[in-house]
Amino acid sequence: MKLNIEVTATDGSARAGVVRTGRGELRTPLFMPVGTRGTVRSISTDELSRLAAPAGTGVEVMLANTYHLMLRPGARTVAELGGLHRFTGWDGHHLTDSGGYQVFSLSPKVTEEGVRFRSTYDGDRHLLTPESAVELQELLGADIQMVLDVCSPLPSPTTALRAAVDRTARWAERARVAHRRGADQALFGIVQGGDDRDLRRESARRTVALDFDGYAVGGLSVGEPREVMLPALAAAIEELPDDQPRYLMGVGDPVSIIEAVALGVDMFDCVLPTRLARHGTILTDAGRLSIKRTEFATSDEPLDPTCPCSTCRRCSRGYLRHLATVREPVAANLFTVHNLTWILGFVEQVRAAIGAGTLSELRASTAAAWAG
Amino acid sequence: MKLNIEVTATDGSARAGVVRTGRGELRTPLFMPVGTRGTVRSISTDELSRLAAPAGTGVEVMLANTYHLMLRPGARTVAELGGLHRFTGWDGHHLTDSGGYQVFSLSPKVTEEGVRFRSTYDGDRHLLTPESAVELQELLGADIQMVLDVCSPLPSPTTALRAAVDRTARWAERARVAHRRGADQALFGIVQGGDDRDLRRESARRTVALDFDGYAVGGLSVGEPREVMLPALAAAIEELPDDQPRYLMGVGDPVSIIEAVALGVDMFDCVLPTRLARHGTILTDAGRLSIKRTEFATSDEPLDPTCPCSTCRRCSRGYLRHLATVREPVAANLFTVHNLTWILGFVEQVRAAIGAGTLSELRASTAAAWAG
Repeated sequence: MKLNIEVTATDGSARAGVVRTGRGELRTPLFMPVGTRGTVRSISTDELSRLAAPAGTGVEVMLANTYHLMLRPGARTVAELGGLHRFTGWDGHHLTDSGGYQVFSLSPKVTEEGVRFRSTYDGDRHLLTPESAVELQELLGADIQMVLDVCSPLPSPTTALRAAVDRTARWAERARVAHRRGADQALFGIVQGGDDRDLRRESARRTVALDFDGYAVGGLSVGEPREVMLPALAAAIEELPDDQPRYLMGVGDPVSIIEAVALGVDMFDCVLPTRLARHGTILTDAGRLSIKRTEFATSDEPLDPTCPCSTCRRCSRGYLRHLATVREPVAANLFTVHNLTWILGFVEQVRAAIGAGTLSELRASTAAAWAG
Repeated sequence: MKLNIEVTATDGSARAGVVRTGRGELRTPLFMPVGTRGTVRSISTDELSRLAAPAGTGVEVMLANTYHLMLRPGARTVAELGGLHRFTGWDGHHLTDSGGYQVFSLSPKVTEEGVRFRSTYDGDRHLLTPESAVELQELLGADIQMVLDVCSPLPSPTTALRAAVDRTARWAERARVAHRRGADQALFGIVQGGDDRDLRRESARRTVALDFDGYAVGGLSVGEPREVMLPALAAAIEELPDDQPRYLMGVGDPVSIIEAVALGVDMFDCVLPTRLARHGTILTDAGRLSIKRTEFATSDEPLDPTCPCSTCRRCSRGYLRHLATVREPVAANLFTVHNLTWILGFVEQVRAAIGAGTLSELRASTAAAWAG
């Protein structure tokens, strides 16, 4: 199921558009919340479906992690329960990663065959291969699945980055062959190459040569500064086709989102808004805000007076600080509702700025608000 | 603000009715969820306001605990933030307890003046008196507040029960005198007397003699069997006026609710539905169900096919079991939504049965479903 993007507006290399799938339309640029184990942490699918930013933008895609779902409850169980959409009750789009990102963080044994690792749940041994990652994701049944790739830490020596690019290319080819569920499931290739611009270009060319349904850039935002990330990203994008969606994996801070959009990225995912929410850190137009600050104890103001979310409509900062201080579990839910609404609204602003040709102004004000 | 009950239907001693307050109407019998620290655990005020049982019954009263709020964030802070309604964002009714129930569980020093205790938050010393309990609750600003009473454990020797009844009566008189915010806040007296029917009758008579805005029965459901509780409750009710609401404190299991309704009780509160939810125990028409049972792993059925709640409309037992097993925080939220919807529906059924004159049939089927 090859995905095409219909570009509706451009501003420099940035583009706003629509991607049509068998399930519906995705408006880009697009932010996808992470539903690690089949739910976005601290918010029910029902409430997730009701989120709406100021101009009405809601969540369009929920990401889920193959690593976690293959172990609990198991991909076959999800399939028996009707696949991810029926399982989670989410009737928007689903995207699954390959499981590789989590597995590589477990210091696994990597061979040409695949990745051997032990489950963080019970210590059992597992093997993830390019083919089994496809098979698992076909069982899960998301609208978009990702190939298994080799993600290098940064910095890494060039020889290691090259080896990762080569293996990623060979694995991508195996995934392409293994993919059977093409009728209703898109398969995205992933560009690697670390911070090496030549390797990024090469990896992009080799991935595109395999003719995927869409393209992702992986292995960035793994600790390197933004000044290192953006040139590597730009090099990859040079080689990606204009008429297909481009997805920058794991990036969710506002400055990186808008800078990547300026380079031509369409899709993003990140745990940032939900993880910050659990720690009482609030996203606002003026930057981050820690709700636990003493000055908020008697503040009757909402988190953000212009925010349409249910938390801002109903709760004062004083009340929210109280809930966070006494560790009421609902605090994480209230902050998650706000942070996701905020980032939906931010991406909505980015999309509007592309349409209005004012992206550079929004880049400047975003950089100023989020400095330091 | 004396509250009267307009009885709209009776079945034996059971009654269905309407209580009108300055804020609106309460339909009885009535179940009040407990919002200990100003929020019902694991559910936002926004979501609480959207709960609705099959015939549309929603939550009408949120209870909050003075003990917790006086310590965090402090009653004065709640007042500065506009009082409980503005603080919690809950625009239905609020009821506050006196703080005594929690304080008595801390083995405090009790004198005629009041109760000295140490805060469970920071060990600081506090004194709660009949007057300060009123004052704190006036600062909190609930629609209904409760007097400070002496709650005896069961079993207790008759001399101890009598001493508690006597002190409760003297404290009730002091609370009655201290109460200033009569225009928009009802003050309920509390009947004590343990399992001694004579003392229950005496305590009820002495409480009624003080002319409260409504009446509660306290000190029951503290570990004694239902066969001990109900006769003591019946004795108290004999002496309570017919035209004012009767509130049985801390009782929330379905069999006790319906048996107490049969004796003439109008109002209930309990942490049971929300506490069970946190442990994955589900309330259904067929009794309790533990979601963690292996047999539910691949069940595509909802918790309850006739339940209108968002959890039952969207989630299978298999999905819910998965979330509970991997300890996703949202599981508590999903089960809380269902359990509260279930108990609202149960009370709705009780109300309908009183109207239809079929309460005895519902008592029998409830007892059968919840046996053992």
